[in-house]
Amino acid sequence: MKSKGFATGVWVFGSCPDRFCTKGYKKEVSLEESLDKIASIEGLQGLMMHYPAPLNEDNASYVKKELEKRDLKLASCDVDLFSSPEFSWGALMCEKEVRKKALEMSKKAMDVAEHLGAEVMNLWPGQDGFDYPFQINYQAQWDLLVDALSEIASHNPGVKLSLEYKLREPRTHSTIANAGIALFLAQEIGPNVGVTIDLGHSFNVKESPANVVALLDKYGKLFALHLNDNFRDWDDDMAVGSVHFWETLEFIYYLYFSNYEGWLGLDIFPYREDPAEACRFSIEMINYCLEIVQKIDKKKLEEIQKEADALSALRYIKSLL
Amino acid sequence: MKSKGFATGVWVFGSCPDRFCTKGYKKEVSLEESLDKIASIEGLQGLMMHYPAPLNEDNASYVKKELEKRDLKLASCDVDLFSSPEFSWGALMCEKEVRKKALEMSKKAMDVAEHLGAEVMNLWPGQDGFDYPFQINYQAQWDLLVDALSEIASHNPGVKLSLEYKLREPRTHSTIANAGIALFLAQEIGPNVGVTIDLGHSFNVKESPANVVALLDKYGKLFALHLNDNFRDWDDDMAVGSVHFWETLEFIYYLYFSNYEGWLGLDIFPYREDPAEACRFSIEMINYCLEIVQKIDKKKLEEIQKEADALSALRYIKSLL
Amino acid sequence: MKSKGFATGVWVFGSCPDRFCTKGYKKEVSLEESLDKIASIEGLQGLMMHYPAPLNEDNASYVKKELEKRDLKLASCDVDLFSSPEFSWGALMCEKEVRKKALEMSKKAMDVAEHLGAEVMNLWPGQDGFDYPFQINYQAQWDLLVDALSEIASHNPGVKLSLEYKLREPRTHSTIANAGIALFLAQEIGPNVGVTIDLGHSFNVKESPANVVALLDKYGKLFALHLNDNFRDWDDDMAVGSVHFWETLEFIYYLYFSNYEGWLGLDIFPYREDPAEACRFSIEMINYCLEIVQKIDKKKLEEIQKEADALSALRYIKSLL
Amino acid sequence: MKSKGFATGVWVFGSCPDRFCTKGYKKEVSLEESLDKIASIEGLQGLMMHYPAPLNEDNASYVKKELEKRDLKLASCDVDLFSSPEFSWGALMCEKEVRKKALEMSKKAMDVAEHLGAEVMNLWPGQDGFDYPFQINYQAQWDLLVDALSEIASHNPGVKLSLEYKLREPRTHSTIANAGIALFLAQEIGPNVGVTIDLGHSFNVKESPANVVALLDKYGKLFALHLNDNFRDWDDDMAVGSVHFWETLEFIYYLYFSNYEGWLGLDIFPYREDPAEACRFSIEMINYCLEIVQKIDKKKLEEIQKEADALSALRYIKSLL
Repeated sequence: MKSKGFATGVWVFGSCPDRFCTKGYKKEVSLEESLDKIASIEGLQGLMMHYPAPLNEDNASYVKKELEKRDLKLASCDVDLFSSPEFSWGALMCEKEVRKKALEMSKKAMDVAEHLGAEVMNLWPGQDGFDYPFQINYQAQWDLLVDALSEIASHNPGVKLSLEYKLREPRTHSTIANAGIALFLAQEIGPNVGVTIDLGHSFNVKESPANVVALLDKYGKLFALHLNDNFRDWDDDMAVGSVHFWETLEFIYYLYFSNYEGWLGLDIFPYREDPAEACRFSIEMINYCLEIVQKIDKKKLEEIQKEADALSALRYIKSLL
Repeated sequence: MKSKGFATGVWVFGSCPDRFCTKGYKKEVSLEESLDKIASIEGLQGLMMHYPAPLNEDNASYVKKELEKRDLKLASCDVDLFSSPEFSWGALMCEKEVRKKALEMSKKAMDVAEHLGAEVMNLWPGQDGFDYPFQINYQAQWDLLVDALSEIASHNPGVKLSLEYKLREPRTHSTIANAGIALFLAQEIGPNVGVTIDLGHSFNVKESPANVVALLDKYGKLFALHLNDNFRDWDDDMAVGSVHFWETLEFIYYLYFSNYEGWLGLDIFPYREDPAEACRFSIEMINYCLEIVQKIDKKKLEEIQKEADALSALRYIKSLL
Repeated sequence: MKSKGFATGVWVFGSCPDRFCTKGYKKEVSLEESLDKIASIEGLQGLMMHYPAPLNEDNASYVKKELEKRDLKLASCDVDLFSSPEFSWGALMCEKEVRKKALEMSKKAMDVAEHLGAEVMNLWPGQDGFDYPFQINYQAQWDLLVDALSEIASHNPGVKLSLEYKLREPRTHSTIANAGIALFLAQEIGPNVGVTIDLGHSFNVKESPANVVALLDKYGKLFALHLNDNFRDWDDDMAVGSVHFWETLEFIYYLYFSNYEGWLGLDIFPYREDPAEACRFSIEMINYCLEIVQKIDKKKLEEIQKEADALSALRYIKSLL
Repeated sequence: MKSKGFATGVWVFGSCPDRFCTKGYKKEVSLEESLDKIASIEGLQGLMMHYPAPLNEDNASYVKKELEKRDLKLASCDVDLFSSPEFSWGALMCEKEVRKKALEMSKKAMDVAEHLGAEVMNLWPGQDGFDYPFQINYQAQWDLLVDALSEIASHNPGVKLSLEYKLREPRTHSTIANAGIALFLAQEIGPNVGVTIDLGHSFNVKESPANVVALLDKYGKLFALHLNDNFRDWDDDMAVGSVHFWETLEFIYYLYFSNYEGWLGLDIFPYREDPAEACRFSIEMINYCLEIVQKIDKKKLEEIQKEADALSALRYIKSLL
């Protein structure tokens, strides 16, 4: 790993509403205030922002300056295909006019990414899926998705199009549900298409995130990371390592020895917690994991792994805490 | 069962936001418009409303008139202890000033229920729980909860205090998580304390909802119903019977032969669907289940059940579709 | 679909043990008795058997005769890489001597399949995975798996090698965990490699099985079916349609309009139920679904699906019961 | 806590079969060999055994001597109502002759427990539940269960009857599914009826095990412990703390400050691992947790908990590793 450092989603500093507390558990803050807070957190050097809000072609130069002023970099410009009700029925998989808009937005997001020096445009097709049995024609919708991703990918081959898979939410079923589907699509569509591992999404679909790192790395498809934690069944977006300590540590181990060169992006949703504290806690936890990982004698561990001797492996890891 | 008929949560007709589409997938409508829509749906005769919004002591007489005008009844007045950010850290289980407010609101909700002729005050302590390991002192918080429920229950013994259990959301863990805990509390606290089965919450905690009906009915503790469906792992609040057909039918079977005398309350959250259609679909499905249930020869089924002969039981039920 | 008819796993007629009732809930019966029972079930014309027991190169001719005697066909010869303790630590992914044996067995299973006229060799790598964090070296093990599958597939290109994915059990994590991973492997390895959908495994990993049918069919990779049902979280191997009625119906709908030309294989594990009854119930349920599906006006449904109008779609389907 | 020390289920040293590897992943060993192994493990002083095998009224004196010889104590004598196929359809909830046998066995297990100086008879009604919708008459079966438990409890009030709840397996639904139901039953039935927390069962039903400790302790109903770990969705019976580090630590924290006076019982099922190593690992992990817990400044933590300040709480705990 040659990580570019820690980044955070700017949304981490938002008001964090849910469907019950609809105004958010906290006050909304301005972009500038968010940037100030982010800049003040030790270890944070980058941030992820959505197109078209809060970042777009019109304010790109202003945002660039605001970032430079605070010594921050843009890790990725991610297209927002989920927050507007016009995407209720899907964005890239919708047969209607709205799909054109989604395509347009995705392409522009890539260009803005490039303009601000971000290598990645993260695409999470949150509304592309379905809720009920018999609701959609799966094959027709799949074709729309593949065509859309191809069109987006070929728009700007210099930008990495990274697909963020997720099992569900906001739909009861997302089409790009797991690492297998995402990797399949990335291989089918082209070299500038890869995959974002959202640690929590990986837990949701009952994957071993460390296994996914190894798999995607083998095919050169690990493009971006969203780090967080949860209680498996839902995307709780909690502070990193607060639930799954061993598996987070194992994830960091495989990441450390991978070819990943991107950012360590925090994607937490601290409904009630202070976002700066949640970032600090997460960075501390990841750094703690990195410290332990650096103490691991890889050869020794791999000898143990050849025997699939889980208890010796875990005992060895535990001895390094 | 001597059901009072179908009721709907007035919130079913709201804008249905989630944490991504924060303004809601639909337009907000006025209370009066909601009432008009509700009154227009065949089979709907009652509705469930939250205190202090949209129903409270100040507008109770106005709401009463608006209901009467449309031949609607109030099924329950439910205290809202979850939508205000002041309850972020809990309402009844919070050690702070806010707990007093929650107690006050709960009592007033009971009184408003009584004033409008609703037998039930449904209490869903949505924020009472926790998110992270080590976050709260469980025993101290439990005592606060028990004391609060006792105080509320004894405030107005003429109103049924119905506890709505749920596994999680908006917290990662709710304290009143399943029917067992709710029944235990209801038995401990008093005769006017019972339990609301939210069909989807029951699926979430991997219960058999029909089993829960039978259990609560035995102890005289089935006070209210919230009907909906989901894909087990999350409270999707979908139209009734759209996923779990057999188990919904079995639930209706046990309900039909229970002593339940309350409303058949719809608690769906139709993010993208038309709320009136979602209600109609749900009522049709429940009525279809009731038709089938009435065709069941109870003695015959119970003979089969004595042998635990599942396939014969299901084959018999299927023959009645 | 041009299905070859219904088949059952011969194991369905076994003693059905679990880890608590280790001798099985029923008596073990001979192969011949199982065949007699299977032949007596209306609608059953084929069966699936494992190599090397009860089917292998030594008894292949005898089994062939016994099948012909009863007018039964071999649907598939499936390699058993899971029941012997020598595969405890994996079969195809194990670095040891045992892997050679697994490869040899897999190849022979293909040949026996061909010899008895079965088009498919189903491969479920049940022991290939891991249990604990840090237990195995994921990349090394993945390479072993891919190499093994390539070697097996190229051994006999005239036989379809069908990969049966599963989330977990008997390991806490299987490597080929979902349809995405299986499809990716099938595409990478070769034209005679495809995928088996086990309906219950698909529910376990929170897929929509109907969606998976559509996806695999598009890429010509739907090779075999294992039909059953469960309560989502575990591979209960229950009678078909006994839990998920709508989704089973939807699965049959997409299957009916697919290019699938294989068998409708029953893979139930009737711990306590009579296996013949469980097969009969499953066949009745599938036939009932097929009847309904044939009544569906595909154009009409697809018009509704273009609007993603779930409630109208479900109401239409329900009207055909 | 005034724990009596570590105990293990003698079954931990069995052959560990599952439904696929039906003979077990290991060789069966004699009781005496198991006892030798158990006695050789540092920290292990007790063991849990089932009635009528390997412990019963006929061999009780022999077993007593064998235990004394090795300086081991019987932690509990647990009735086995699950391994014989005669209990396929339930034991205490079965309306047939078999129920009488189950009652008889349960009573004798209590007497044998008393005879060997074990305070607890652990009762896990593994077969008491159901598999399919419509399979049983819930109310009739519930009454049978309550009556049976009352009869057993009153047979020998000097022995603690501890109910071990579990969500599922071997049935798809167990009747005593969670801590709430178990606590309710314990309160209803009598003072010598309490609850066993199996750590993994608690994870399966998505409880916070630490919360359950606090709850049961408050009502004086925490009678026994089964320690292990899993990946939430299934009872994997893995070595303690190998998946859920923080929650296991939190569980130990609440346990340490509880009034629990029983054994720390290991209930792992090491299919592939050496059972002695799995016990050693688990004991090391629990001792590590106990060390950390002893370093916790309870007042300080409770101050943090008053603010529900999860991140500060976790950061403080992490600082003690």
